[in-house]
Amino acid sequence: MPLFEKILYSTDFSPLAEYALDYVRKLKGAGTKEVVIVHVVDDVSIELPEGADLIKEKELFKILPEVDQEYITTLVQKLETIKSKLEREGLSAKIYLKYGNISKQIVNIAESEKVRLIIMGAHGKGLLTEILLGSVSTDVIRNAKCPVLIIKKDLPKL
Amino acid sequence: MPLFEKILYSTDFSPLAEYALDYVRKLKGAGTKEVVIVHVVDDVSIELPEGADLIKEKELFKILPEVDQEYITTLVQKLETIKSKLEREGLSAKIYLKYGNISKQIVNIAESEKVRLIIMGAHGKGLLTEILLGSVSTDVIRNAKCPVLIIKKDLPKL
Repeated sequence: MPLFEKILYSTDFSPLAEYALDYVRKLKGAGTKEVVIVHVVDDVSIELPEGADLIKEKELFKILPEVDQEYITTLVQKLETIKSKLEREGLSAKIYLKYGNISKQIVNIAESEKVRLIIMGAHGKGLLTEILLGSVSTDVIRNAKCPVLIIKKDLPKL
Repeated sequence: MPLFEKILYSTDFSPLAEYALDYVRKLKGAGTKEVVIVHVVDDVSIELPEGADLIKEKELFKILPEVDQEYITTLVQKLETIKSKLEREGLSAKIYLKYGNISKQIVNIAESEKVRLIIMGAHGKGLLTEILLGSVSTDVIRNAKCPVLIIKKDLPKL
């Protein structure tokens, strides 16, 4: 059974997410062929103009302030870099840049893309928010229908 | 880098844990050689005799009521069955039967055995306990120093 054939890799471009990419590569040996690379712009990082939810995703970009347009363009470039990296290793890859609630978006894409596994770093949102609302990874685990691989890393002691 | 060389598989012998075993097997292709199989008897399932915490683990078995001795023996047999199954597939395996707080014991064994990954089903303890205390898997993710693969399964609709 191809348990790891198509997987979703969620990245916030942090060092931990970079480290998680090593696992994505390693899973090729366990049958991974296709990687869906996802970055979600948190709904607190960019404030959308009023009425933005009524506008189609493609149109939305045009009405953003220039500074946010540049930010989005940088994010797409980062995603493209990861895509090329994986393709060079013989994996097929596609990218998603989404806006909104991080865990919800990840779970939605996982379902629509029918992935067999989600890989992500164990990033939270700070201690207090985590206690009140749960971390992003906890929310993904709670709501995803497929297995979730949470990457943690013991940071070197200073 | 051998990211998946030695892994910990935690089982509560449920169908979901059984399903998670498929992932353990599949990881052989990603470099897994050694599996540490763990079952923790929850400290609410068996009540230990008074003063039990002062007794060595090996002595403990002898002072348990006969019904609990039989229960423990069955658990060991179940663990041995999984061990044989994995060994037949060319993996090296060892078993741990522990008593106490499930997530703490899993994290402790993961550290002392220096595993590179923990695999377990997404079992909770019921909704209310989960809200108040967090599920077993959430606690493992919070406290483990290595990556954690949480297996979920979309159960067939009735």
